[in-house]
Amino acid sequence: MRMIDLILKKRNNEELTKEEIHFIIEGYTNGQIPDYQVSALLMAIYFNGMTNEERLNLTIAMLKSGEEINLSKIKGIKCDKHSTGGVGDKTSLVVGPLAAACGVKMAKMSGRGLGHTGGTLDKLESIPGFNISISADDFHRQVNEIGIAIIGQTANITPADKLLYSLRDVTGTVESIPLIASSIMSKKLASGADNIVLDVKVGEGAFMKNIDEATKLAEGMVSIGNLANRKTVAVLTAMNEPLGCAVGNSLEVIEAIETLKGNGPKDFLELCIYFVTEILIVCGICKDDAEAHALVEEKINNGEGLNKLAEMIRYQNGNQNVINDYSILGSAEEIIEVKYFGKMPVYVEKLDALMIGEAAMLLGAGRETKEQAIDPTVGVVLNKKIGDKVLPDDVIAYVHTNGKNTTNAIEMIFNAYRFNNKEITKTNKILKVVR
Amino acid sequence: MRMIDLILKKRNNEELTKEEIHFIIEGYTNGQIPDYQVSALLMAIYFNGMTNEERLNLTIAMLKSGEEINLSKIKGIKCDKHSTGGVGDKTSLVVGPLAAACGVKMAKMSGRGLGHTGGTLDKLESIPGFNISISADDFHRQVNEIGIAIIGQTANITPADKLLYSLRDVTGTVESIPLIASSIMSKKLASGADNIVLDVKVGEGAFMKNIDEATKLAEGMVSIGNLANRKTVAVLTAMNEPLGCAVGNSLEVIEAIETLKGNGPKDFLELCIYFVTEILIVCGICKDDAEAHALVEEKINNGEGLNKLAEMIRYQNGNQNVINDYSILGSAEEIIEVKYFGKMPVYVEKLDALMIGEAAMLLGAGRETKEQAIDPTVGVVLNKKIGDKVLPDDVIAYVHTNGKNTTNAIEMIFNAYRFNNKEITKTNKILKVVR
Repeated sequence: MRMIDLILKKRNNEELTKEEIHFIIEGYTNGQIPDYQVSALLMAIYFNGMTNEERLNLTIAMLKSGEEINLSKIKGIKCDKHSTGGVGDKTSLVVGPLAAACGVKMAKMSGRGLGHTGGTLDKLESIPGFNISISADDFHRQVNEIGIAIIGQTANITPADKLLYSLRDVTGTVESIPLIASSIMSKKLASGADNIVLDVKVGEGAFMKNIDEATKLAEGMVSIGNLANRKTVAVLTAMNEPLGCAVGNSLEVIEAIETLKGNGPKDFLELCIYFVTEILIVCGICKDDAEAHALVEEKINNGEGLNKLAEMIRYQNGNQNVINDYSILGSAEEIIEVKYFGKMPVYVEKLDALMIGEAAMLLGAGRETKEQAIDPTVGVVLNKKIGDKVLPDDVIAYVHTNGKNTTNAIEMIFNAYRFNNKEITKTNKILKVVR
Repeated sequence: MRMIDLILKKRNNEELTKEEIHFIIEGYTNGQIPDYQVSALLMAIYFNGMTNEERLNLTIAMLKSGEEINLSKIKGIKCDKHSTGGVGDKTSLVVGPLAAACGVKMAKMSGRGLGHTGGTLDKLESIPGFNISISADDFHRQVNEIGIAIIGQTANITPADKLLYSLRDVTGTVESIPLIASSIMSKKLASGADNIVLDVKVGEGAFMKNIDEATKLAEGMVSIGNLANRKTVAVLTAMNEPLGCAVGNSLEVIEAIETLKGNGPKDFLELCIYFVTEILIVCGICKDDAEAHALVEEKINNGEGLNKLAEMIRYQNGNQNVINDYSILGSAEEIIEVKYFGKMPVYVEKLDALMIGEAAMLLGAGRETKEQAIDPTVGVVLNKKIGDKVLPDDVIAYVHTNGKNTTNAIEMIFNAYRFNNKEITKTNKILKVVR
């Protein structure tokens, strides 16, 4: 088999076989196929796409390139929830404990990633003492005992995906639906869960800018998951504005706790309930939406969801008193009110998620390079979201700052908002479900 | 400027500017831009093409990457003729001397290349003593004195094209009209001629398989040439069967000499006359076809074309007696008649050029790797071509062999022929002119 023939085959829009795809991934991973041939192939895939069969084979080939997590020591129904990422997305901190309280085994491994705010791991680490590096045995024991653990990825899973992603990043081949779908799904399959619920963010603040592209990605991932015998559901959710109000690590932990207490922002609470509902149905714990919905509401109202989070924090060496005492998280030196100074009442028409993320980043909430340290206390808390009425002198947002780039962050926040004299309707965050 | 942005630009089908294309070619040539980014760009070009402006800029950028031949010491109108290559193509050996006899300055530098038979240089070197490596001064003096020289390429012209071509060869990006056009034209512009006449071969035996693709290539090259202020004409010619009858180095020299004597195969003679006619008009030596045609016929009939070839051979240290004594070229050990053994008269319907080329290659007439030596005396001489009637026991071809792969070559020749009971019309070799 020669790589040049496989490039030509894909370039000429023919289907690559399972053996051919494994030849490519193995050859590239072990250094026998050079970067320049793989990048030409990736660009041909960008233009010609991949069939469902090719996507599955690519996913499996990348999965086989590294370790696979074995969750067989965990009893019960294991589920993984994954989000393609957005600004203010602290969903895992609420959905995980609620689903665990309903009886699902949530064994979650997170990556750190770069971004406007930290990833789930960074948010959890803003809780003093919280340990994300626990052994496989402790991980399995914890999930068996309390139903949930969120830890860092230690195993060498999907090294081929890491190599390919680095190459895609510098060769203009990131924005390819089959490549994105295979990349995400190879990691999900390697993580070992039986059931997978995917949150595909859509909008200017997300990787997928429109619903058509997002639908294609969702369908691609669901197809791969189902072909690989995992029950997979993808939910398209709007990222037209930040999710919830808090954007910043400890600020988001507080918002997640408040949400588990039933006091979270409406859009975020509804989204979390929706995802737990999907998880309960996919995992076969509930028969239908109504039953699942009632169970989730119960776990919020009786505090069992909140208790799960507290248990997880305690099991992972964090200070569980944080649940009732946010001062444990520390706070920023200054909280600045960002105000609307217009003379007439208006409504929020737009609220650019990326700009709010950028503002949080400027304050020190995120990292641009792997080496950068995160400031857990800083960030933005939105007081007005799309559809909200804003009166003269109303606070639209709060900036939590330790003095870094404060002025720039405030400017960025003003730029993120667009107001309109007419009333604006709030739209639903749940756009579409792909099963 | 960042290469990744330029890849994305081309991937998104936007036009690259002159500065951007020069940045790419300079960066790649001096090693600052890695192979894997260039191959991704080439694949994007394969899919999205290039505008005329981009093609010109790519051509010029490659031209500027190396030396440019200065022909200013040669007085008069300088013309270059270039063929995209085909089986049995010995056109330069006839067209060059005839055009020179008509007053055009033919200063031709040839590459060696790989192929079924050798290139023009290998054919000339089958003449004992013929020297293709002469100094620039001697080259200019020879063209000034006799109007023609054909030598090997010594200068380091278009190194960027060599680099790009090597990369295209292993990344499935050879078959791209804009890349082919720019590659050929960068070499033609670097060779310094004022006027360029291109022979674009079309058909199963050529690089361009159909007339639409060939037309696009021809238009692409003519556009580049004209934008670069060189008068450029491209003629599409059929390569549905080998050109002329001889395929093999010294065998083709003999056929070229016979053609200059007026005794060549009709298809080949007509093609040569056509090309000289085009050259004379492009160079402004004749007003129209009729005048040019008459002048060429005169140069064949009065032997001046033949004398030019003899002069060139003498100037370049070859034995010019070869013009009248072919034994000087040596001969193969054995000439085998390949016969038609059917019981009924038939007509030649098809004659696969590539298979005939392959047969010559098997006998030792060509080289697969740069290091291989060529056997100048072996090859195939066709006795029946498309449209010819073949009677039982007629010889269809002669195999000139020194014992290497003789049987395989004969089998290949039988496979190249397809016969039909019905009469087959000979078709014209000149398909189309692009100015």
